[in-house]
Amino acid sequence: MNINVYDCVSPLDFRYYGQDARMRELLAPYVSERARLKSEVAVEVALVRVLARRGICPPEVADEVAAAAEQVTVEEVAEEEARIQHNTRAMVNCLQRRVSDRARPFVHFTTTSFDVVDTARAWLFREVTHKAVLPEILKLERILIDLALREKDTLQIGRTHGQHAVPLTFGFAIAQYVNRLGTCIEKIRQAADALPGKISGAVGAYNASSLFFDDPVAFEAEVLGELGLPAALASTQIVPPEPLADLMHSFTLAFGVLANLADDMRHLQRTEIGEVGEEFGDAQVGSSTMPHKRNPWNFENVKSLWKAFMPRMVTIYLDQISEHQRDLSNSASQRFLPEPLVALVNALLRLQRVMGRLVTDRERMAQNLALTRGLIAAEPAYILLAAYGHSDAHERVRRLTLDAQASGRPLGDLLFEAEDLKPYLDRFPDKQKQVLLHPEQYTGIAARKAEQVCETWRQRLGL
Amino acid sequence: MNINVYDCVSPLDFRYYGQDARMRELLAPYVSERARLKSEVAVEVALVRVLARRGICPPEVADEVAAAAEQVTVEEVAEEEARIQHNTRAMVNCLQRRVSDRARPFVHFTTTSFDVVDTARAWLFREVTHKAVLPEILKLERILIDLALREKDTLQIGRTHGQHAVPLTFGFAIAQYVNRLGTCIEKIRQAADALPGKISGAVGAYNASSLFFDDPVAFEAEVLGELGLPAALASTQIVPPEPLADLMHSFTLAFGVLANLADDMRHLQRTEIGEVGEEFGDAQVGSSTMPHKRNPWNFENVKSLWKAFMPRMVTIYLDQISEHQRDLSNSASQRFLPEPLVALVNALLRLQRVMGRLVTDRERMAQNLALTRGLIAAEPAYILLAAYGHSDAHERVRRLTLDAQASGRPLGDLLFEAEDLKPYLDRFPDKQKQVLLHPEQYTGIAARKAEQVCETWRQRLGL
Amino acid sequence: MNINVYDCVSPLDFRYYGQDARMRELLAPYVSERARLKSEVAVEVALVRVLARRGICPPEVADEVAAAAEQVTVEEVAEEEARIQHNTRAMVNCLQRRVSDRARPFVHFTTTSFDVVDTARAWLFREVTHKAVLPEILKLERILIDLALREKDTLQIGRTHGQHAVPLTFGFAIAQYVNRLGTCIEKIRQAADALPGKISGAVGAYNASSLFFDDPVAFEAEVLGELGLPAALASTQIVPPEPLADLMHSFTLAFGVLANLADDMRHLQRTEIGEVGEEFGDAQVGSSTMPHKRNPWNFENVKSLWKAFMPRMVTIYLDQISEHQRDLSNSASQRFLPEPLVALVNALLRLQRVMGRLVTDRERMAQNLALTRGLIAAEPAYILLAAYGHSDAHERVRRLTLDAQASGRPLGDLLFEAEDLKPYLDRFPDKQKQVLLHPEQYTGIAARKAEQVCETWRQRLGL
Amino acid sequence: MNINVYDCVSPLDFRYYGQDARMRELLAPYVSERARLKSEVAVEVALVRVLARRGICPPEVADEVAAAAEQVTVEEVAEEEARIQHNTRAMVNCLQRRVSDRARPFVHFTTTSFDVVDTARAWLFREVTHKAVLPEILKLERILIDLALREKDTLQIGRTHGQHAVPLTFGFAIAQYVNRLGTCIEKIRQAADALPGKISGAVGAYNASSLFFDDPVAFEAEVLGELGLPAALASTQIVPPEPLADLMHSFTLAFGVLANLADDMRHLQRTEIGEVGEEFGDAQVGSSTMPHKRNPWNFENVKSLWKAFMPRMVTIYLDQISEHQRDLSNSASQRFLPEPLVALVNALLRLQRVMGRLVTDRERMAQNLALTRGLIAAEPAYILLAAYGHSDAHERVRRLTLDAQASGRPLGDLLFEAEDLKPYLDRFPDKQKQVLLHPEQYTGIAARKAEQVCETWRQRLGL
Repeated sequence: MNINVYDCVSPLDFRYYGQDARMRELLAPYVSERARLKSEVAVEVALVRVLARRGICPPEVADEVAAAAEQVTVEEVAEEEARIQHNTRAMVNCLQRRVSDRARPFVHFTTTSFDVVDTARAWLFREVTHKAVLPEILKLERILIDLALREKDTLQIGRTHGQHAVPLTFGFAIAQYVNRLGTCIEKIRQAADALPGKISGAVGAYNASSLFFDDPVAFEAEVLGELGLPAALASTQIVPPEPLADLMHSFTLAFGVLANLADDMRHLQRTEIGEVGEEFGDAQVGSSTMPHKRNPWNFENVKSLWKAFMPRMVTIYLDQISEHQRDLSNSASQRFLPEPLVALVNALLRLQRVMGRLVTDRERMAQNLALTRGLIAAEPAYILLAAYGHSDAHERVRRLTLDAQASGRPLGDLLFEAEDLKPYLDRFPDKQKQVLLHPEQYTGIAARKAEQVCETWRQRLGL
Repeated sequence: MNINVYDCVSPLDFRYYGQDARMRELLAPYVSERARLKSEVAVEVALVRVLARRGICPPEVADEVAAAAEQVTVEEVAEEEARIQHNTRAMVNCLQRRVSDRARPFVHFTTTSFDVVDTARAWLFREVTHKAVLPEILKLERILIDLALREKDTLQIGRTHGQHAVPLTFGFAIAQYVNRLGTCIEKIRQAADALPGKISGAVGAYNASSLFFDDPVAFEAEVLGELGLPAALASTQIVPPEPLADLMHSFTLAFGVLANLADDMRHLQRTEIGEVGEEFGDAQVGSSTMPHKRNPWNFENVKSLWKAFMPRMVTIYLDQISEHQRDLSNSASQRFLPEPLVALVNALLRLQRVMGRLVTDRERMAQNLALTRGLIAAEPAYILLAAYGHSDAHERVRRLTLDAQASGRPLGDLLFEAEDLKPYLDRFPDKQKQVLLHPEQYTGIAARKAEQVCETWRQRLGL
Repeated sequence: MNINVYDCVSPLDFRYYGQDARMRELLAPYVSERARLKSEVAVEVALVRVLARRGICPPEVADEVAAAAEQVTVEEVAEEEARIQHNTRAMVNCLQRRVSDRARPFVHFTTTSFDVVDTARAWLFREVTHKAVLPEILKLERILIDLALREKDTLQIGRTHGQHAVPLTFGFAIAQYVNRLGTCIEKIRQAADALPGKISGAVGAYNASSLFFDDPVAFEAEVLGELGLPAALASTQIVPPEPLADLMHSFTLAFGVLANLADDMRHLQRTEIGEVGEEFGDAQVGSSTMPHKRNPWNFENVKSLWKAFMPRMVTIYLDQISEHQRDLSNSASQRFLPEPLVALVNALLRLQRVMGRLVTDRERMAQNLALTRGLIAAEPAYILLAAYGHSDAHERVRRLTLDAQASGRPLGDLLFEAEDLKPYLDRFPDKQKQVLLHPEQYTGIAARKAEQVCETWRQRLGL
Repeated sequence: MNINVYDCVSPLDFRYYGQDARMRELLAPYVSERARLKSEVAVEVALVRVLARRGICPPEVADEVAAAAEQVTVEEVAEEEARIQHNTRAMVNCLQRRVSDRARPFVHFTTTSFDVVDTARAWLFREVTHKAVLPEILKLERILIDLALREKDTLQIGRTHGQHAVPLTFGFAIAQYVNRLGTCIEKIRQAADALPGKISGAVGAYNASSLFFDDPVAFEAEVLGELGLPAALASTQIVPPEPLADLMHSFTLAFGVLANLADDMRHLQRTEIGEVGEEFGDAQVGSSTMPHKRNPWNFENVKSLWKAFMPRMVTIYLDQISEHQRDLSNSASQRFLPEPLVALVNALLRLQRVMGRLVTDRERMAQNLALTRGLIAAEPAYILLAAYGHSDAHERVRRLTLDAQASGRPLGDLLFEAEDLKPYLDRFPDKQKQVLLHPEQYTGIAARKAEQVCETWRQRLGL
């Protein structure tokens, strides 16, 4: 059934995914309803293949089912579901119609709906993670690494509480995100690989399969092995919900890192700060009435999608609870599980574009750094004086900063003019003196650390 | 652009809304992207109508814009947006292209994008509330009222903590939902009618409009009046977020009531309880492997959708925060605002169907009530004995309940056989005695209250 | 039982409330466990007073219970609860021990625990709202009104997306918060006054009370009338959860407004912006290592508490669901209900202090406004030229802004020097010309609107 | 400062933690404000120890600081904080006052407040996890294992959608929780061990420490090594938030498992089901008016605390975002981090008590299983007939179930009486025939699986 995309109700469908060819190419094989059916029939095929291998049915039966699986359409399943009001049974019926009488009993043989649904979902989420999410997040990671290295020596004032603190480099600031995103990437990979399937029947006790197999657990492992999935050590009608919750959590964490990055970039684009900028297209309009404006709309979009999707974790936690061998109150809610993933990938692609072409205004960074230059020296001055034995260094420096503000002169100059401080300053090694006179050098090991962080993650992630 | 519905990613689009003709008929005029465009051009038309009325432009200009508004398509706006990367400006450009040079400047005259976006959204949400949500919730309310009245005398055991407590009637239990839903209906109506629009320009100070009008506030009121909307007393680039948050809260509250009702019905269908049932279709399959099962899947679905959408309130609260005269980080997130509303209407339609045909098993209710009949009399026995002066009534009755359990005899019989209690019992009026002998009569004013609640809400809601 | 405050685990107890004399004075009568007991015995007293008035028990019994209610201590109730493991029964037992045999049966007569618990809670929340929350939020509202009026003419650049947009006044910006907070105040008041109590027994059907009263609903109304509370139209063992959810929602909305205000003030304190400042104490330390820093820590604290408490709404929505005539799974969670209220009041007191002494740097505001002055004129220039018939105004102005940026000259000058624009500009009334030459005057009706908003809320709130 | 526990506002302080000697003994060293100070001075001591080892200060200085650390009290720090309004500086000042002039500069040397705060927090959370959370969750795991093994052969009907499905054993049902909790235990352990500290200064670039050390990263590692903590690979003023978010997530997942267990136990205690029970004390009161009631209040409490604390994850995710090198808006919110942990431990202790003494009513389980015995055989009958070639097995069996219901006879009997089915049934091996005649044997490998799950987790967890 075709619909006009503008008659859709979800912004994912009419805007962020459905209209974006790149997004659809990347994700359609995994997140659409069509993909879901494909994955479910794949489970049925895996099942019958193992039945044949174990001699429960002839090999031709498996071939028949595999052929039917190729042919079955989402439309006919929907039609059948409309008739019988049962999603999985509809799929089974459609498969059965396409095979011979002999083959029919071996479709869905000994399994319950959620053997198929949960196994198929685990398979889809593992696939989409490896084929779409991880590649795209790694691309962004690479872009951030390149940016961090490119800007590893670019001086920038460090900001805490929105106030100027002490200097660092812009590359060092970006390296934080390299590191945080790297951590998330590892978590995502680990969580995806831990997703289990199940072929343990209506209440998880292998009631039906144990009628035919002495070791139904081995049978289950064999079926899941066809799909490359581990089996849950124990299951009810459904797999334990925690592994999937873990994956969604790791997606959410990654999205949070992106949102933080977006916020930082937004603020660095404030008119009064102006240290970075999104590249604007020629025809692009910043404001419908204020033509001079260039809004950080891509970063705002990332933040906004995060606000829309982060709270979905509450649903994930609610879906941990299912009564006894399961109630169905996690069924509709779990159909929405691909949505946050789609939103995450949208944010990844967007940030790849924007961070990959991020404009850095080094002059403006230098100007901002100079805004309070004198005061920046206060921290090292106080620490050094104290280290060399000044008993009231903090207060002495504080008074000098007041003088510096009053006179408009650099704090460094005043420090070296102060007679009472001479005995201490004379003992400073040259490197330490230089920091006081050139506080913009007071960047610690920012550049070196940026490099080290990038190198570490390059290796750990194989970039 | 057409897409196959099964390529959508949102279950609303491929399942709960997009495939449900009734849902689409009801909601498409309000919740689709197409509807959003319609509402935005309606704001532009309202604007230019007032400009004409005030002599800023000739009446023909307004007619031109109104005609263009009829013709502009969501497709051309999307194409324009792809070019200039600005949603509202794209709509404005498309309108301007369809009018004469003379008319062009008066499209979007003095307004900012969010004058249009926020006003259009207020209008849409008010409309969809009055035209779709309220009618459907009132239909369910009527169904519940009918059920409460039909079952007002049907004896049922009251349950607290899942334990048998004291009796009531099933109609009384349903009347609770009549009452709670009634409260929500009034809240929803009130919240929808309070949604404000704005025509106050880029930062809300009427900067542009005050170049042309001495009283731009009156001008704003006139434009919004065309749409039947009140103006926000104050606004930035956007309307204050609290009124819309209120409406979403009232939807969420209503959904919570539905979820509670669904839970109750689910549990009353437990095999061991069996007091109510969903009507099943002839071809309907309960389980893919267990043909005898009739699962309360509609109620489970309502609960599950509630789990999926209730947490969206977190996004609403996050969107209260917008920096200074606004940042755009509420833009993408607010595009998702229609979704919970669609889910709510889906649950309403589903519950109308299921509650309208709810099967009540009065015999089973009576059997369940009888399960612990003796013990039900314990509360009135203890209260009455105490009221008539027995100094240790609670303990005396407790001991009798143990005797009743041991002997398997009704507590009432034991009470009237106990010599020491005779002096007290003799003073009981007949009505009180009867309750002890026929504890199933101990339903207080359940039936009367059910009637009163239904009558009250019938009148308040004009049903 | 006394504990050292530093052995508490809740930051409310050891920091934000427990150590703040003003907070405790204000809130202790309503939010402590001791207060909860007081409110519950007050319900028992109301009950017995009405029993006496209706002749169910002698007046002296009511006096006895009232006297006992004065004496009962939270310690003895805790001890009794430790013995019998039932919170409300423990309170009832303690009251009963303090009265004569004759009076004993009339304590808790015909009621269930949650008649008392829910009624007492409604009473406490209405009281604390009227006696503490509303007075303090009104104080802040008054402070904001004073600030808005004081700064109504203070020029400030309007900011959207963090970018300079068009000018307004700082008082106008503050008036937004006056308006939003005003709305919340009205909601809070309304929600608090709608909180119902109940005296309808174990399952809400007045089972026990109807043994003694023909019209147990009138009896209920009379008891609740003693406490100034309305009765729920219908109840189970508990009152309908929606009215309290409404109050918590209105608190949350108000907290969101405070968080938004705090964010704005934080950002206006950025080193590069510096338009406002928190007053610092003489001994106050801004940073443990950077003595020059003055962090917006109070505003950060408000934002942070909001992050801690806003998500509690999810619990509120979860607690809407209670099975049948109730399960107890809302009991522990509801004990935490006073916490967000305490956090809100903490934020109110903090913002009273900080906003009441907010330092405004008007010079800095003027400097920031001037940063892009030329560009600010772009919007009115384009709108006016278009209005006077220029067919390509937007593009013409855009080119002039590029010239202005290149030459460093004000846009207004360039506009009036451009020969091709002269025919249009000549037709501009003086007021419109002035805006182009003095774009800092392009503030619309900011000052007037600030006044109007303040005046409106003064009247509506009786300030 | 002492306060009466009943003047506290947090139910943790006046009820669930503060009044529970076992809880306090277990957790006070880690979750109180006092514990927090202890952990922060421990970081200062670690710092100065390394300074001494590296020759920055004499060993005696380190001893002095260590001695001072022993003596400093939470009271004096609070007093100092009241004076200077800075939490960490207050602690530093108090330490400095207790040491000689010579030692003073080396307290907090080169560090920023959050070097101490974040490192101390990591240390506390790792400690409390290993010393309190893990031991208690392991105790519960052991109790569940014992229960699962004890009941591994106890027949119970499996329930899906609240409907009878097919049989299993109660031990098998419990083994699901053994498995899910086991998974959580491993996650918690892993997350706790991954918590990093930091000694990298005000913006994370080692600005101050690099004045004194060529390799400040090695210096950081050495200080953190004193506390057994890894260093963050990169940090700003604060550690990356993701590792702590991970730990809180793993706590939340565990709590969700407990809530699910509690729900199951609640429902199994329903009057109509009655398969399990909480042991009641002799003096314990079930209801204030209904003395016969025994409510599953402990399970309800666990569920309720979960509802109160699960949504805290939203705060955790919000706290991932901190502007630039950090804003302080995560400070107040993070003070509340110990609370969910305390609630989790409370639930663990409670479930240890209740699950350790869970009463199982095997007779009732058998009765419930028998309720629909005939229908239970429907699944194996249909599967077996199909497997042996019956072309319409599902429909044939469905008709027989209708006959069984009509006649009240066991489905198994009817199966073997049906002439048309004889050819198929004759080919059934004995084991398969037995299942049809004794459907209560249709439990698959429930008992064996329960054993295997328990054995696996015993080994993996070293129980």
